Amino acid sequence: MTKKWNVYLSGEIHSDWRERIQSGISEHKLNVECFSPITDHAKSDDVGVTILGAEENSFWHDNKAAKINAIRTKTLIQQSDIVVVRFGDKYKQWNAAFDAGYASALGKSVITLHAPDITHALKEVDAAAQAVCETPEQVVEILKYIVL
Amino acid sequence: MTKKWNVYLSGEIHSDWRERIQSGISEHKLNVECFSPITDHAKSDDVGVTILGAEENSFWHDNKAAKINAIRTKTLIQQSDIVVVRFGDKYKQWNAAFDAGYASALGKSVITLHAPDITHALKEVDAAAQAVCETPEQVVEILKYIVL
Amino acid sequence: MTKKWNVYLSGEIHSDWRERIQSGISEHKLNVECFSPITDHAKSDDVGVTILGAEENSFWHDNKAAKINAIRTKTLIQQSDIVVVRFGDKYKQWNAAFDAGYASALGKSVITLHAPDITHALKEVDAAAQAVCETPEQVVEILKYIVL
Amino acid sequence: MTKKWNVYLSGEIHSDWRERIQSGISEHKLNVECFSPITDHAKSDDVGVTILGAEENSFWHDNKAAKINAIRTKTLIQQSDIVVVRFGDKYKQWNAAFDAGYASALGKSVITLHAPDITHALKEVDAAAQAVCETPEQVVEILKYIVL
Amino acid sequence: MTKKWNVYLSGEIHSDWRERIQSGISEHKLNVECFSPITDHAKSDDVGVTILGAEENSFWHDNKAAKINAIRTKTLIQQSDIVVVRFGDKYKQWNAAFDAGYASALGKSVITLHAPDITHALKEVDAAAQAVCETPEQVVEILKYIVL
Amino acid sequence: MTKKWNVYLSGEIHSDWRERIQSGISEHKLNVECFSPITDHAKSDDVGVTILGAEENSFWHDNKAAKINAIRTKTLIQQSDIVVVRFGDKYKQWNAAFDAGYASALGKSVITLHAPDITHALKEVDAAAQAVCETPEQVVEILKYIVL
Amino acid sequence: MTKKWNVYLSGEIHSDWRERIQSGISEHKLNVECFSPITDHAKSDDVGVTILGAEENSFWHDNKAAKINAIRTKTLIQQSDIVVVRFGDKYKQWNAAFDAGYASALGKSVITLHAPDITHALKEVDAAAQAVCETPEQVVEILKYIVL
Amino acid sequence: MTKKWNVYLSGEIHSDWRERIQSGISEHKLNVECFSPITDHAKSDDVGVTILGAEENSFWHDNKAAKINAIRTKTLIQQSDIVVVRFGDKYKQWNAAFDAGYASALGKSVITLHAPDITHALKEVDAAAQAVCETPEQVVEILKYIVL
Repeated sequence: MTKKWNVYLSGEIHSDWRERIQSGISEHKLNVECFSPITDHAKSDDVGVTILGAEENSFWHDNKAAKINAIRTKTLIQQSDIVVVRFGDKYKQWNAAFDAGYASALGKSVITLHAPDITHALKEVDAAAQAVCETPEQVVEILKYIVL
Repeated sequence: MTKKWNVYLSGEIHSDWRERIQSGISEHKLNVECFSPITDHAKSDDVGVTILGAEENSFWHDNKAAKINAIRTKTLIQQSDIVVVRFGDKYKQWNAAFDAGYASALGKSVITLHAPDITHALKEVDAAAQAVCETPEQVVEILKYIVL
Repeated sequence: MTKKWNVYLSGEIHSDWRERIQSGISEHKLNVECFSPITDHAKSDDVGVTILGAEENSFWHDNKAAKINAIRTKTLIQQSDIVVVRFGDKYKQWNAAFDAGYASALGKSVITLHAPDITHALKEVDAAAQAVCETPEQVVEILKYIVL
Repeated sequence: MTKKWNVYLSGEIHSDWRERIQSGISEHKLNVECFSPITDHAKSDDVGVTILGAEENSFWHDNKAAKINAIRTKTLIQQSDIVVVRFGDKYKQWNAAFDAGYASALGKSVITLHAPDITHALKEVDAAAQAVCETPEQVVEILKYIVL
Repeated sequence: MTKKWNVYLSGEIHSDWRERIQSGISEHKLNVECFSPITDHAKSDDVGVTILGAEENSFWHDNKAAKINAIRTKTLIQQSDIVVVRFGDKYKQWNAAFDAGYASALGKSVITLHAPDITHALKEVDAAAQAVCETPEQVVEILKYIVL
Repeated sequence: MTKKWNVYLSGEIHSDWRERIQSGISEHKLNVECFSPITDHAKSDDVGVTILGAEENSFWHDNKAAKINAIRTKTLIQQSDIVVVRFGDKYKQWNAAFDAGYASALGKSVITLHAPDITHALKEVDAAAQAVCETPEQVVEILKYIVL
Repeated sequence: MTKKWNVYLSGEIHSDWRERIQSGISEHKLNVECFSPITDHAKSDDVGVTILGAEENSFWHDNKAAKINAIRTKTLIQQSDIVVVRFGDKYKQWNAAFDAGYASALGKSVITLHAPDITHALKEVDAAAQAVCETPEQVVEILKYIVL
Repeated sequence: MTKKWNVYLSGEIHSDWRERIQSGISEHKLNVECFSPITDHAKSDDVGVTILGAEENSFWHDNKAAKINAIRTKTLIQQSDIVVVRFGDKYKQWNAAFDAGYASALGKSVITLHAPDITHALKEVDAAAQAVCETPEQVVEILKYIVL
């Protein structure tokens, strides 16, 4: 199949899950391109005020950043075939769940990736997913199966 | 305006915010009908096995429930004009963020409702919202302004 | 909730499953209206030639009927909130599977209804469903849960 | 015409119809790329448990496989110009009819391929098709006519 | 079925086919509402200049009228379940064929109504129709079959 | 025709054009309901800070108001059949042109209403309109012609 | 601009208008690819029976051909940026008007090409067009203007 | 990321803002292609009569031009990821606001570019934007951040 598959990797930015998926894709020479949000935390948080000018109120500081980040995020999700959404064990990660809902409404195939101990809290997100993985290597196995 | 506005109230089920919004709507005689997910926690968690038969594995217990709940949730969000998404101070509430993403992708107007201390974690969700409220009464004020 | 739910009942026309669902809806006074294809088998098979003139070739006899029936079927599926698809133990019932695929592509909530012994053959259809029921009474229970 | 046509070949996996279509495309040097589901029956049936872990209940065994397969199937149908749906003389083949309904709702051109003796049972599917073929060579002739 | 069916009657304005369909609907008490373009020929041709001011150039005279008529035509076709397109034996009737193409692209069910002697010239339009009728009474029979 | 036509009246809030259109509709007893943005200028400008709290920066003062107003505006445009866009002789009125573009992309019928001396500057907006009127009475005449 | 523009040339197959447009595109080295229906009249009329088997009834002879031709026509119109629709002085050419309606409903830019003496009969089609040309050279001038 | 980003630059044609954005893109070797309307003012105003023949009435002179220009404008906005809309200090620039509304309804990311002194008049347009810039260099910074 000449088709290149576009896969968006949403969620946690504090572990190496993206690298492990990318590494599996390279190893198996899969015809897959991965997209991600900006994963440099500080840069991502401050992009609004850095480019467009400071804000006294932290709400607007965040708001300007989040809206610029959304240009990247929404465009890439819209143009992906599959959206992998990773939930780690820290933070609220509401943006990951938001992306899952956004992708789901667009009819994208969603794959979730998380430890089993947070399954109950993620049941609505998992119910909208085509597959629920525990390890990045399982995601790679699914991609390998699908795109070959 | 003869138009009836449909408003879906997503998220937290442990405080009285829905009642306060409903009460404000009644008081001001607004032409608004509110929709909600099933807010009986135990009933909602167990609906899958109650109706369709027991599961040994808690993942499938949850999955069967979440998929039935999604019939209600997605249909009502699709048919609403406005989706209010409430985040409380407990639990992960990933389903609320999922609903916000889902509503946003459908082009619905989203209003978020949460305390200011979780603003940073909610910045992507707030960035997709038309209004960010701290109290149910502010939601009522917005509805009153819009639908009269 | 003032919303009336529209439910399309697709598939098998040789048992009383539609009546049992309808009866449960009436008993519980659910705000649900059910739609169905024309369930008079002979009338449905012959409607093309009856109205538009005889065909020597049985392919066109069938084709004229199926296209008229599709006016009803597609319109009602498009306007339903939920599509229940019933598979019995006889016949190929490809039209039921076709309706399930059609409904699924439109983003409708699909509920399947069939005996467990045909589960393997129906796995792709069940995988696109929000609930898999074995009895009409389970369908009624789901409707009761969702629409109240 | 520089346009490459994408053709999805859905249905029966027990005869050589895909090879015969592919062979005709090669022979006539048509600018057509064919896509298919995973046609290795055992691998396809077991992909869920192989990658994501065993299930005691055969329903979930099937469900996990079917949902992973659907990632491939739905994505490729969505990106095809034409969907050819083959019905053989064995099995229920509800997935083929489901794919036909799914493709039809997306506005894809559907071509069916089956022996004339199952025409009556397939009348609703054929009624949604642009052409009804009996041999893979007829499908090739249609592609040749359309894409040159 | 409580559903009211909306049927748009496009095309020829020089015979009584609309009245005959309407009369059949009334006789059988069908839950159908028919919509039509403005069928007063002179009024329809001149509406642009009558309301918006004279034009020296007949092209703009026609253009202003056709654009106002399109407000009615397109809105009503968009909101119909079925579009009946009538071709008579006089005039070019390109607007009728345009309406058929417009309705077809929107996924509406199209029924054509014309004498058999113009079948060859109408083959592309008929190929997009769910039924090809010769008399208004056949249209009524189809409506009666579908909506009861 | 039992259909009620929904007409959104966008633009200028400093003259009595809306009243004149409404008055013509009443006089002719047309089955038309008109929708408008909030036309109380001060209330509309300040709604954000009034409900959600003061802003030091006038940009955010405006931003909070405009986003709340957009809930009303976009929802009502989406649900209208016709959007009338009025341009007066004062102010930039970019919101009116924005509404025209928004309505046009949604496939709504647009009618513009403005004096002839600003025709050149409005040529792109007029080119997307079905009718270009100079007086509210002409708008009424068009509605009367279309909805009767 | 690296963008290649796709232009579908619909309508009359008895004069050299397609060649003249193609020739102008080549001469000016425009980044435009033209698509057309099958313009071999006999082959196009008979394609259904040639590939799929003879029909006694001429209606089905035509129907089988028209449905195969529609695979090409609809796919290419869906994937074009601009649809040029040519009306000559002979025949009914309902398929051209159908294509114009189909393209218009999809939001494609339509350019019509016809002699001024048939303007009145084409007023609805012209009203849906972005430009009304009398010569193929005018079409080339528009393309040259737009794509450079 | 191999993805090329398409950015449409709408609005003012009297200053060098497009060149400054293009220059920044080149300097940083961003994988971005910019599209624009025809920016030769006289040519753009007269294109209708130049190609399609003179008009006595200046309204039609403008109308013919604006409709041809819209072929380019709408197609390119539909195919862009981001639409930058520039408002200068002269003229009404209703076409820029129209483009912003059009892009917004299509779900495109909008970036506005204007001096702070016209913020109040642009509040509705800015409220639909993901970022509000004052200089072309800020637009370049955003693109650089997003596409790397």
